[in-house]
Amino acid sequence: MSRRDIDCLVDGRPAASIAVADRGLAYGDGLFETIAVVDGQPRLLPAHLQRLQRGCQRLGLPPSDQDEWQSDLDQIDLPCYGVLRLSVTRGVGGQGYAPPTSLRCTRIARILPAPRRPSEWWRDGIDVRWCDTRLAIQPALAGIKHLNRLEQVLARAEWQDSTIAEGLMRSTREEVIEATSCNIIVDAGDRLLIPDTRACGVDGIMQQWLISRAQSSGIAVERAALNAEALMTSDGVMLTNSLIGLWSVRRIERSPLRRSARAQWLQALIADHRLALMPGVMAQ
Amino acid sequence: MSRRDIDCLVDGRPAASIAVADRGLAYGDGLFETIAVVDGQPRLLPAHLQRLQRGCQRLGLPPSDQDEWQSDLDQIDLPCYGVLRLSVTRGVGGQGYAPPTSLRCTRIARILPAPRRPSEWWRDGIDVRWCDTRLAIQPALAGIKHLNRLEQVLARAEWQDSTIAEGLMRSTREEVIEATSCNIIVDAGDRLLIPDTRACGVDGIMQQWLISRAQSSGIAVERAALNAEALMTSDGVMLTNSLIGLWSVRRIERSPLRRSARAQWLQALIADHRLALMPGVMAQ
Repeated sequence: MSRRDIDCLVDGRPAASIAVADRGLAYGDGLFETIAVVDGQPRLLPAHLQRLQRGCQRLGLPPSDQDEWQSDLDQIDLPCYGVLRLSVTRGVGGQGYAPPTSLRCTRIARILPAPRRPSEWWRDGIDVRWCDTRLAIQPALAGIKHLNRLEQVLARAEWQDSTIAEGLMRSTREEVIEATSCNIIVDAGDRLLIPDTRACGVDGIMQQWLISRAQSSGIAVERAALNAEALMTSDGVMLTNSLIGLWSVRRIERSPLRRSARAQWLQALIADHRLALMPGVMAQ
Repeated sequence: MSRRDIDCLVDGRPAASIAVADRGLAYGDGLFETIAVVDGQPRLLPAHLQRLQRGCQRLGLPPSDQDEWQSDLDQIDLPCYGVLRLSVTRGVGGQGYAPPTSLRCTRIARILPAPRRPSEWWRDGIDVRWCDTRLAIQPALAGIKHLNRLEQVLARAEWQDSTIAEGLMRSTREEVIEATSCNIIVDAGDRLLIPDTRACGVDGIMQQWLISRAQSSGIAVERAALNAEALMTSDGVMLTNSLIGLWSVRRIERSPLRRSARAQWLQALIADHRLALMPGVMAQ
């Protein structure tokens, strides 16, 4: 097994490009996962592959082959710290939107550098804003991590101020669902609340890991319809994803929030398990 | 200008692939146009490029350069009958969803074969079905032809019966908006009705051309909120797009519809201007 700085595989072969005719490009007809690589190991990989599997089922793609992914991971040059992006598309073919009758998916494994963020964001919390772009109500695509991400791109393009770490997104029904690339956990004192993702939003892998841990520690966790007011009056709002781990929200549009007493504990859990690209895990 | 069977250009150069890192693939971050080529000429090209321009504006992309497209058309091998697909993506770069600060779009021009459909579909009309997949309400993306097309893919995957030509799509508010790859024109006797696309759906180029013609002939055209009942009790339902031109809907889920007295006239207009890949235009 010789590794020659291979940082991208398409269908198991080193490549930096895909066919222009691929339905992933033509229609966003596929799925992806963004996975933290820590100490040269992809973290929470089984959970990521399970979500990918749920996505395949929802889009009518054949189940993703776990052995093929493993073979990709054996071939690709995993860095000490970085990001592994896995994608599956419906491949080439079909007549217009109609999927090809003889389906051959495209499988992509790609290494990206670890994003660098100010270490104060973990220590002191972050400032966030409300995005104008709303998430559409679409149960057929809710929960899964598909390639149709224009809503997130438009929302993230709403601000350039580098002191604003994230933007909170509401659905067209005005429910708070997620941030552009993070999930939300709200500390409601006696319990934790997470937004309902049956109509829109992505089911977060790190969020799921954290709430499982909280539940194991006897903390109740509920899915809830949350509005802006609920966040402002809560005992703390946390943003979480597989790369950054967890940030506490310090201010929303300059209005200060309480800091959850559980934020530090949850961050420590992530750091102890070396699950995310955060201070205390990555070498400085 | 020597043409060497070039059927795909990426940024003006013959190519069959794009970078895996392209945001068109990563997020469906871009736009496209599907244009009929008849007698070696792309049809309704200015209108298609205008819609592309509106899309660029909406997504925050720089205006598409008309001279670059013209240079692509001079280079590419345009068939006698076929399809020209133009795409623009936000290119490579940026951090996650955040667009790159120094933006360099990817421009793709690609030739596809003319789709073959039974000639009876033009002559006798078509059978269609209702799709279960709903169109989400998303004003930020409505009207433009962006690359986030999973709703259409899922809707088109709902049936394999080759005698069903198209599937009608409703919004999550139950309004009839379009078919998976066609726009709708409803004959309401004294006027024509077209669905409102401010919340979802694509503004059709052929539909726009046809309603302009109808208006020039003194026929009133109105945007309307249409439900299934309105279609069933109308004086006829027509489906239209840039490739097929116009089909009359004969039956919806086996229930017969009236045939619009205007369908034949509108088909003749399209054929006279040689705008679509239809009988009477294409050599058999």
